[in-house]
Amino acid sequence: MNIINTPKIHFRDDSVEEEIERKRKHQAPDSFQNAIGPIIVVAQCLGIMPVIGILTNNRNAVKFKWMSIRTIYSIFILICGIAELLLNLNRIHRVGLNLINAEALTFYAITSTGQFLFLSLARRWPKLITCWDRAESVFLTRPYRTHGWRLDFKMKILACFWTALSAMEYAGYLTMTSIGIYGALKECPGTNITIQEVFFESQRSHIFYWINFQNWMIPLLLLVNMSLTFCWTYLDLFIMLVGISLAARFNQVTDRIMQMENKIIPESFWTEIRGHYLLLNELVLYVDDRLSLILLLSCASNLYFVCLQLFNSFTSNYSDIISTVFFWFSLLFVMGRAVCCLLCVASIHEATKGPLRILRRVPTKHWSVELGRFSRNIAKDTIALTGRKFFYITKRLVLVMAGTVVTYELVVFDQVDKENASAGENGTHPCNWTTRQHVL
Amino acid sequence: MNIINTPKIHFRDDSVEEEIERKRKHQAPDSFQNAIGPIIVVAQCLGIMPVIGILTNNRNAVKFKWMSIRTIYSIFILICGIAELLLNLNRIHRVGLNLINAEALTFYAITSTGQFLFLSLARRWPKLITCWDRAESVFLTRPYRTHGWRLDFKMKILACFWTALSAMEYAGYLTMTSIGIYGALKECPGTNITIQEVFFESQRSHIFYWINFQNWMIPLLLLVNMSLTFCWTYLDLFIMLVGISLAARFNQVTDRIMQMENKIIPESFWTEIRGHYLLLNELVLYVDDRLSLILLLSCASNLYFVCLQLFNSFTSNYSDIISTVFFWFSLLFVMGRAVCCLLCVASIHEATKGPLRILRRVPTKHWSVELGRFSRNIAKDTIALTGRKFFYITKRLVLVMAGTVVTYELVVFDQVDKENASAGENGTHPCNWTTRQHVL
Amino acid sequence: MNIINTPKIHFRDDSVEEEIERKRKHQAPDSFQNAIGPIIVVAQCLGIMPVIGILTNNRNAVKFKWMSIRTIYSIFILICGIAELLLNLNRIHRVGLNLINAEALTFYAITSTGQFLFLSLARRWPKLITCWDRAESVFLTRPYRTHGWRLDFKMKILACFWTALSAMEYAGYLTMTSIGIYGALKECPGTNITIQEVFFESQRSHIFYWINFQNWMIPLLLLVNMSLTFCWTYLDLFIMLVGISLAARFNQVTDRIMQMENKIIPESFWTEIRGHYLLLNELVLYVDDRLSLILLLSCASNLYFVCLQLFNSFTSNYSDIISTVFFWFSLLFVMGRAVCCLLCVASIHEATKGPLRILRRVPTKHWSVELGRFSRNIAKDTIALTGRKFFYITKRLVLVMAGTVVTYELVVFDQVDKENASAGENGTHPCNWTTRQHVL
Amino acid sequence: MNIINTPKIHFRDDSVEEEIERKRKHQAPDSFQNAIGPIIVVAQCLGIMPVIGILTNNRNAVKFKWMSIRTIYSIFILICGIAELLLNLNRIHRVGLNLINAEALTFYAITSTGQFLFLSLARRWPKLITCWDRAESVFLTRPYRTHGWRLDFKMKILACFWTALSAMEYAGYLTMTSIGIYGALKECPGTNITIQEVFFESQRSHIFYWINFQNWMIPLLLLVNMSLTFCWTYLDLFIMLVGISLAARFNQVTDRIMQMENKIIPESFWTEIRGHYLLLNELVLYVDDRLSLILLLSCASNLYFVCLQLFNSFTSNYSDIISTVFFWFSLLFVMGRAVCCLLCVASIHEATKGPLRILRRVPTKHWSVELGRFSRNIAKDTIALTGRKFFYITKRLVLVMAGTVVTYELVVFDQVDKENASAGENGTHPCNWTTRQHVL
Repeated sequence: MNIINTPKIHFRDDSVEEEIERKRKHQAPDSFQNAIGPIIVVAQCLGIMPVIGILTNNRNAVKFKWMSIRTIYSIFILICGIAELLLNLNRIHRVGLNLINAEALTFYAITSTGQFLFLSLARRWPKLITCWDRAESVFLTRPYRTHGWRLDFKMKILACFWTALSAMEYAGYLTMTSIGIYGALKECPGTNITIQEVFFESQRSHIFYWINFQNWMIPLLLLVNMSLTFCWTYLDLFIMLVGISLAARFNQVTDRIMQMENKIIPESFWTEIRGHYLLLNELVLYVDDRLSLILLLSCASNLYFVCLQLFNSFTSNYSDIISTVFFWFSLLFVMGRAVCCLLCVASIHEATKGPLRILRRVPTKHWSVELGRFSRNIAKDTIALTGRKFFYITKRLVLVMAGTVVTYELVVFDQVDKENASAGENGTHPCNWTTRQHVL
Repeated sequence: MNIINTPKIHFRDDSVEEEIERKRKHQAPDSFQNAIGPIIVVAQCLGIMPVIGILTNNRNAVKFKWMSIRTIYSIFILICGIAELLLNLNRIHRVGLNLINAEALTFYAITSTGQFLFLSLARRWPKLITCWDRAESVFLTRPYRTHGWRLDFKMKILACFWTALSAMEYAGYLTMTSIGIYGALKECPGTNITIQEVFFESQRSHIFYWINFQNWMIPLLLLVNMSLTFCWTYLDLFIMLVGISLAARFNQVTDRIMQMENKIIPESFWTEIRGHYLLLNELVLYVDDRLSLILLLSCASNLYFVCLQLFNSFTSNYSDIISTVFFWFSLLFVMGRAVCCLLCVASIHEATKGPLRILRRVPTKHWSVELGRFSRNIAKDTIALTGRKFFYITKRLVLVMAGTVVTYELVVFDQVDKENASAGENGTHPCNWTTRQHVL
Repeated sequence: MNIINTPKIHFRDDSVEEEIERKRKHQAPDSFQNAIGPIIVVAQCLGIMPVIGILTNNRNAVKFKWMSIRTIYSIFILICGIAELLLNLNRIHRVGLNLINAEALTFYAITSTGQFLFLSLARRWPKLITCWDRAESVFLTRPYRTHGWRLDFKMKILACFWTALSAMEYAGYLTMTSIGIYGALKECPGTNITIQEVFFESQRSHIFYWINFQNWMIPLLLLVNMSLTFCWTYLDLFIMLVGISLAARFNQVTDRIMQMENKIIPESFWTEIRGHYLLLNELVLYVDDRLSLILLLSCASNLYFVCLQLFNSFTSNYSDIISTVFFWFSLLFVMGRAVCCLLCVASIHEATKGPLRILRRVPTKHWSVELGRFSRNIAKDTIALTGRKFFYITKRLVLVMAGTVVTYELVVFDQVDKENASAGENGTHPCNWTTRQHVL
Repeated sequence: MNIINTPKIHFRDDSVEEEIERKRKHQAPDSFQNAIGPIIVVAQCLGIMPVIGILTNNRNAVKFKWMSIRTIYSIFILICGIAELLLNLNRIHRVGLNLINAEALTFYAITSTGQFLFLSLARRWPKLITCWDRAESVFLTRPYRTHGWRLDFKMKILACFWTALSAMEYAGYLTMTSIGIYGALKECPGTNITIQEVFFESQRSHIFYWINFQNWMIPLLLLVNMSLTFCWTYLDLFIMLVGISLAARFNQVTDRIMQMENKIIPESFWTEIRGHYLLLNELVLYVDDRLSLILLLSCASNLYFVCLQLFNSFTSNYSDIISTVFFWFSLLFVMGRAVCCLLCVASIHEATKGPLRILRRVPTKHWSVELGRFSRNIAKDTIALTGRKFFYITKRLVLVMAGTVVTYELVVFDQVDKENASAGENGTHPCNWTTRQHVL
């Protein structure tokens, strides 16, 4: 991260917004770390990203320790996830592979990998956040202004929104399954087993094949499952937050150039701006290097689950209205999350192209080599987060993915009838009620 | 829309065309607003684009008022459309989803969305037309000439052509269905219901499930249906008109440069031309921003309906010649409209590349930084209307869409036999005759 | 076609090849027109491209006349083709659409369109060949040399090769069908009809449904069929010849630059070379404009028939070795022709990139604005023949087409069993023997 | 290969690494030829690449002779391969084409072609290695340093790894088949044939249809089969080695520029660097020209076998754990080899873009025409190995191939049940046990 130190020359325009700006200054600086801090802390409650000192203002306090309670907690969740994955593999060996099995297996594989990637990200977090902070610092002071809402605020809104939806979806799943079991138990009055017992034995048959269910296991089982489910949502959420943070910085550059339009601009201004632009470019490359595995996992899992849920929407025919509503809510949740995640990351690429439109309008008499290089940089380079350099995440990707999903759905559409038939055979008697669409 | 004001220097060539030009000047200027005015007024008869003052020469008279009769009329149609959409959803809940249901649902969903988008476009129309007018004004005066036919004329021809075809298709549908019902009623002589009753009860079963048919409902039902059907065609038509208008301006730029070939050209000429080119570029970006949802809807609905109609062409086997002819006319109409729409919009992108070919031929001794920037602008920038920035609408897109359609058709080809079989089961007795291919 | 006239400065290198060169000069100049002349004359025997004066050295003698015998002959063949197309449509209306019907229909549709396109090309041929000649003249004199074999020779080899293969394929088809009929007639000894009668009545059932077969019709029927079949091959052949001619000129430019390497090169040399390069560029654009419909038709028909023949290769199971050999020869012929055609045209695009590699090696001290513009022209512009601007014909296209063919084959592979079953039902008794795979 | 000779000016930085460097100098230079020599010798044991003098330091000793023992050995293996291919074709003519037949046929077709390509590469090897050596020599001396591990070491690790895995896979196949036969023989105790006899007669039924099995044939049969199987792996291995060698050189260029950052750099430095970069560029073009058929074969065969093995993974249901493990090992081996091969080659393209990032950071006051040309070269040119110019092998290709594989698998997924059914019918009695999944 050896970046040229351009001399910082600021061109002040003491507009009316100065006052509002000053009032803002009493707040903490609108940096990425300050904004993401509380969100990470919430995630740590479920064992994700075990970094310490995340809320302090002292950058050196941010550390990763193997021996801290958070780390041990994280590793415990990870081990449980891997254990469930292996038990699932064992179960598939016993009962054979089918679509519902595959879904459960994929769920555990993705969430365990996600948990592992966050753990390894946590180790590098102190260094990453220091670099980010250094690159960002220049955009927190005067010549740059915040464009629209504070980044801080936008990130918190986004985090709350998706966490709430995720929680609703999880609660909905618990409710739906419990109602189903309650109905089933009523029809088979002879048995005197509790609803919890059926719930966990059916949903976690890969565990309770080996051990007997005890009531004290409930909190543990729920905790591990909630952690993994949340880790899945957090994968996307984290990427969204990174996406809008980086895009915001590029927008600040565009905004600053826009302010200077129709003014006499010295060459040094463009040198400075290009320096800052390159700084952000380097930051994107650095962040991409650190996050690309998480991005790849997120894209792959979203593609897989959107395809799967859409496929389920063809095969499923729920009789009651509440199951139907929950199913469609769940489908829209998965699709919305995937699209929102991609759009947030794609906004980086869009933001990097922002200055180009203004540069084109600079009169030729003010044109210079510096401006030529700057405009060529912007036009030619594709600055965007990538999926391990295999693909750039731009708006176009959303379209490509949508096309892929439609093609796959059309291709597998033939299978619907077969699946329907076999599904009809499996689920005959409610007392044998074992697995449901959603994976626990 | 803060665009550089380049000094306007005109290079006159008093050719023989000057006379023809002067004669033309007695006409109203060949601007977009003057040309589209009458077409919008026609659309307003069916409740689309409720803007007032559209035919006056006074730009400030163009306004949108919530309380005008046109707006209320539009909103009424929109509410009826949404109501039919919801009733259709309800019907699908009752009878289950199949291909014909899905078609009806999609039809109402698309046309209601279209109606809504035109309403929201109408609100922004006064501002859009003012910007357009300002950007366009420079191309209406002397150094620029009209290339070929007047834009005005081309737009009216296009509008008449597609409106006429659309009307024919609608009339054909009414006739075909009536003939079908007439034949069916003859075979079941016991019943003494009128042809209108059967027509509306079968075609609008989602409404007449709840209420009884009365003769006075006919005009209302027809009006709403015609409005929605026309809105569907108008989506594409409107986009075509915008497309050829913008392309015409770029062609004027190319034309003007072409006139100057082999003359000694001062630097300032290129500065002016580049200024005008950037002005058009900004206009395209602005229009794209306002119309991109309409473009996206149009592309999606065209893709869907072309796929569907082609699929129907495999399954359908009409016995009589008149049904066959109507079916193929309907299929070609849908495909032709989609292709024409895409080609008109794609012509913008083609027109923007026009000056490049001439610039390449400028001798190097007359080359300058201004020319270098201009030629790089043209070569690198993709100036085109987009589908919400997800894709650019260029000639290539037509090919991609055609490929997609062929692939999808091949993939769903397997389903044909199943559909045939089930269709055969449904339509056994003419007295139970309920729905037909085409959606009303 | 208003192209800058760059002063012609020649840099002579009197190498050992000078002698060989001089010897060559006694031959006619190696121009496109001289080379294609005899090939067109051969095609005219079967009614294609009715231009007169094609073999004379006087450019002004090349003319198109509606009232010449060649034109009337061409129009006669075209009318026959259209008549057969309509009769086929009528037949399909009678017996229903299936794969073999569709193949016959497509064959007549493509060849009639091809015949029509060649007729309309013939009308523009005098102007086209004049432009081509003017653009080409500069490459026929000294500073430029022929690279490898004479263009003339290469074109004739190519023409002979594909004409011979096409003739073999046609002869093979006649033989195979006759053998089949001979065998069938032997098994049904009661009937006393001749082999010719069965041949034409089975292969042209769309004609002999209306009229009775008479022996004097044979030459006429054969002539029309041969003309159409050859027109189909000639589509591809003509495109190949145009492709290698244009590529050869670009290769001459590259070759000339290569000769100058390591010499001191004045600026004017580059101005001249760039002028010639632009001249060729204009020629490609002009030719593309005139030929793009033929190119589009050729690509579409090749794609269709390769897919179809491959599909047939799955379904067909010929018992005798000779049928098998003929079938595979026919398949390879169709595929080879399609690939060869695309590669010849794609060679233009490859040849245009030739000078870039040498320009990169010019030392920076000799770099100039002229060279910069030249190198940017080459790097950025895509100079290639196109399919009506929908796609560029480059080497990449071959890959894309191959991928498309494989995908389509895999998708329709499911249909094989069904087709097999139905084919098995149709062809039970040899006396009812009516149509065969290949279309006559 | 006429490349500009740029004056070699070295900018020394006597850092602490100098000592380590000097120590290294006692080793042989880290050139491609020295590194690949031993690997080629190993391959020659199985008849691949019969070049002589490969291990000597004298470049002129590297020769190809038709009359050397190695060449005759190679040609013998090639003839055997072609013979087996023809016998297989004959067998398919007898028993009809099915999936297992097709796999055997493809295996022999690919390996024979591979063997042939390596033979024809061997003929050009002396010239190729001379060119490579000359281009490489500049990167073996001081101003350039080795980046990370010695190329030599990396290549040997890679070669050992894949050779070992390939050997394991082959041994596994022999073991699995023998176990299967052993079990089958036990169940049919009446027969007194040896295990070897059954093995070869079942696995090479195309040979032993014509002749009787004799024990002395075993070594010969095994040798030919091992050679062909290894040739298949060697195709990919050879490409990997070439890939990392070329990428390493580009990385050295990047590394050298990186060292000079923040120093005052004379113009001549950039001239030299650009010269070296162009030298590598020429080398890549030259190597690509020589190897592109091998690359095309490798890509095609990998795509085909990955698709096939994945397809087998759906249809196969092995009862015992050891078969399952071997099957998945085999699948992962094929997939891993394909991905590793593509990534190694794609690393060239990535490495060529390396200098761009640093060039962007050069302050504008030090910018020059030389730098402008250099940066434009890097940004615009796609320097990569290609599949016969049809496609560039970049990281993107891996994604495209993965997408293609998934699409194909989904499309052919329908066939699974049919195949299962027919497979079930074939393999009923173990005494009729003839062919197994894997091809020998």
